[in-house]
Amino acid sequence: MTSMADSVPLTRPDGPEPDLTGLRQAVDRVLDDFLADKARAAADAHMPPEAIGTLRAFVLGGGKRLRPLFCCCGWYAGGGTGDTTAVVRVAAALELFHAFALVHDDLMDGSDTRRGRPTVHRALADHHRGDRDPAAAERLGAGAAVLVGDLAFVWSAELLHTTGLPAPVLTALLPVVDAMRTEVMYGQYLDLLATGDPTDDIETPLRIVRYKTATYTCQRPLHAGAVLAGASAPVLDACTAFALPLGEAFQLRDDLLGVFGDPGSTGKSRLDDLREGKHTVLLALALRSARPADRAELRRLVGDPALDESGADRIRALLTEGGARAGVEHMIRTRRARALRALDDAPFPPAATAALRDLADALTERSA
Amino acid sequence: MTSMADSVPLTRPDGPEPDLTGLRQAVDRVLDDFLADKARAAADAHMPPEAIGTLRAFVLGGGKRLRPLFCCCGWYAGGGTGDTTAVVRVAAALELFHAFALVHDDLMDGSDTRRGRPTVHRALADHHRGDRDPAAAERLGAGAAVLVGDLAFVWSAELLHTTGLPAPVLTALLPVVDAMRTEVMYGQYLDLLATGDPTDDIETPLRIVRYKTATYTCQRPLHAGAVLAGASAPVLDACTAFALPLGEAFQLRDDLLGVFGDPGSTGKSRLDDLREGKHTVLLALALRSARPADRAELRRLVGDPALDESGADRIRALLTEGGARAGVEHMIRTRRARALRALDDAPFPPAATAALRDLADALTERSA
Repeated sequence: MTSMADSVPLTRPDGPEPDLTGLRQAVDRVLDDFLADKARAAADAHMPPEAIGTLRAFVLGGGKRLRPLFCCCGWYAGGGTGDTTAVVRVAAALELFHAFALVHDDLMDGSDTRRGRPTVHRALADHHRGDRDPAAAERLGAGAAVLVGDLAFVWSAELLHTTGLPAPVLTALLPVVDAMRTEVMYGQYLDLLATGDPTDDIETPLRIVRYKTATYTCQRPLHAGAVLAGASAPVLDACTAFALPLGEAFQLRDDLLGVFGDPGSTGKSRLDDLREGKHTVLLALALRSARPADRAELRRLVGDPALDESGADRIRALLTEGGARAGVEHMIRTRRARALRALDDAPFPPAATAALRDLADALTERSA
Repeated sequence: MTSMADSVPLTRPDGPEPDLTGLRQAVDRVLDDFLADKARAAADAHMPPEAIGTLRAFVLGGGKRLRPLFCCCGWYAGGGTGDTTAVVRVAAALELFHAFALVHDDLMDGSDTRRGRPTVHRALADHHRGDRDPAAAERLGAGAAVLVGDLAFVWSAELLHTTGLPAPVLTALLPVVDAMRTEVMYGQYLDLLATGDPTDDIETPLRIVRYKTATYTCQRPLHAGAVLAGASAPVLDACTAFALPLGEAFQLRDDLLGVFGDPGSTGKSRLDDLREGKHTVLLALALRSARPADRAELRRLVGDPALDESGADRIRALLTEGGARAGVEHMIRTRRARALRALDDAPFPPAATAALRDLADALTERSA
């Protein structure tokens, strides 16, 4: 899924915008407190500490907190003011749901690192390597990661249910959350099927981008926050007009970073996507425009689990020389511009618009 | 988890009890309609039909519908009368959640069959065997089953959110559902850790029984239905007093059937639990009471992935001769009696009490 390495600078300390850095810290405090409570309850239930401990370390160990930030921005966009307790708790619930999605995603991809640390299934397998044989420890790590992911989902729902929101607000929020959950599953499923055999079909990777990022990461979290503020239909429509192109631009940037990025900044290998044979827009463009010999070479190299740095360098050269890299940069620019134009017409309070503009810059011009 | 093969006869056609057979059919109609809608929406979203098709076949292809039955009985116990639309929909949501738990459980256990049919990860791996190499098809089947399970969870929540319940009733129901979800995850995690290395420790398997069956299968679904009917605290307490011992008795019966049952009736292999080395009360009792030579033989045979029928017969003989089988039968009897005594004192309408009595008989004296 998306890279999760670094914090995104968002606020101007002296500006009029919402204090997104403060909100992000508040989200982390909610997650920390909630998971500490869960760790105590689990210990009382004789659960081994590794399960919740691994989840806590994963959730609190990094991540851009994008969905919480969009949620908080949506609240301001919808005219929210004053007490942020409820929106912060809903934002934290979205982050915990995202932890669930990432834990399962890493397991399915067989990824060993995320955010510069071992993934959950890897950490749990390592934890049990001392008390059983290596193959059994691997199986246990995989099974335990399925359950730790499931627990993150269960608890994200509980966090959502215990916001103290008035019942009508909660019931307005739930359809947004239901749509968001279904969409990310669609995206993950399509991604799983397409991985390993990239083709020149651009529709499929664009559809994956839409479900996994445009709606799941941007639009629905914005709507969740806006609904909490009692936003009108035109406000929700303006959120959509901004979020969908921005989400696409963000994911296209992420795909570029997955191949051309600096692992020291992104926190993840830049070989994984190529070794897995991720069916990205970038690769589809490259396969579409490449000369036959280059296309054959790309097909041979991409998806090779033993791909080394020199093979990856050759892919990078083909992606650059054939124009696919520039093509994706162009797609990012047009989508970013469309998102910013949508902001010009949006019926949001000016401070919310300014914060969303900063967010758009941070997401599409980033290097991590 | 629990065996899921056959229907449990529950109602006396001429008696005064709730029509649980009719309610079960109503639950199945809700599931069928809901998943048909989801299949259409998924097709519109360009999702491949195999994902939702496999889930539908799994959900509608069998199962005792225990959690829905407890939910409906809880509603009657709480004094529910008249329109059953909402309770049936909540009951269906519990069943879809259970499908999620089973899909992930089968994947973790590496089980090939459930309800006499291929498990979801097996069906999905088989489906993709034509279009990729066998190892890749296995990996894809496993990953797809993670996501199909996740989707069942997502949609069970959506089903719950779209019951049309008044908001205050929904917000009273959610804590019951949250507790239920956490408990089954605890049970699954403890079960996963304990499997493969059964010992004479009886506390751990009893704790697993409590989370996976006594609370998750019996108590919480009863409470869910009772809360829908606006039940008082004494009614909820009486539900607990009945459900916890009954759930233990039911799971102990299930453990016996997993070793001594007829696969033609239970729908699952009676070798799986022994090959996996499930840490059951039955095995703990056997290891505790066995003579040293028998204990060594049990340790050698149980957990052997290559165990054959003659080895399994030898285990069965040791479990029987050493008294463990009779010990578990005794535990079932005492727990069943405790559950029935709780019914004598319960402030339920007589028809609800009669239905719960039938349910207790069906669950503890069954052969499937």
